[in-house]
Amino acid sequence: MTDGAAEVREANERFYRAFEQLDVDEMEAAWSHGEHVKCVHPGWPLLCGWPAIRESWQSIFASTAEMRFTIADVNVVTADTMACVTCTESILAEVQGRISVTSILATNVFERAPQGWRMILHHASHILGGPAT
Amino acid sequence: MTDGAAEVREANERFYRAFEQLDVDEMEAAWSHGEHVKCVHPGWPLLCGWPAIRESWQSIFASTAEMRFTIADVNVVTADTMACVTCTESILAEVQGRISVTSILATNVFERAPQGWRMILHHASHILGGPAT
Repeated sequence: MTDGAAEVREANERFYRAFEQLDVDEMEAAWSHGEHVKCVHPGWPLLCGWPAIRESWQSIFASTAEMRFTIADVNVVTADTMACVTCTESILAEVQGRISVTSILATNVFERAPQGWRMILHHASHILGGPAT
Repeated sequence: MTDGAAEVREANERFYRAFEQLDVDEMEAAWSHGEHVKCVHPGWPLLCGWPAIRESWQSIFASTAEMRFTIADVNVVTADTMACVTCTESILAEVQGRISVTSILATNVFERAPQGWRMILHHASHILGGPAT
């Protein structure tokens, strides 16, 4: 189970590397491609299926000049063929000429494919500072 | 696998019934209670472990006079001992005398415990209408 967790952690890092490099091919390699995959960018509605998700990354990468992540509080729960990761993303981005720093909370779910762990869900949302802060 | 999905769907419904009934005991029965359980209420930071999550429900229920859910777009992906559900929540609530209607996107992750499927993660975030709407 420990090895599984290490592999999942690596798959999670791979996803953020693809994100930081604004690399759609690497993003494609990090994800499963079935109809069952889902993605929620902060404030966006749910995207279902790889074609819609791929298009969203293309659109985000096209409007982003630079993106730097600090990923913290990475927590992994694994089962045989599915794993759930939560983490916080501190994002320093330059979008349309403006620098912004954003705190995001992400749930990332992976499935074990023959080639290794692949993302099947990314749910990211802003931390606004609710009653629990 | 179909039966597993039906059971997970039922566990998901149980969670929303507990939420609608503002019933902490029912909420307790719907969740696993380990250190690994996590909860993100819309805009809140991540809560880890059952005691903190239980307290959050108590606080939400204490300030809510009435809550009605319409749950839609329920999508279930199951593995042997873990399952991932996404759904949209349309919430009609009366909080501190004010009626509000809110659209929320939720990821709910469950693990198969000896007594059945129990929630290990609830990540809820507002749908603000991003570039994909």
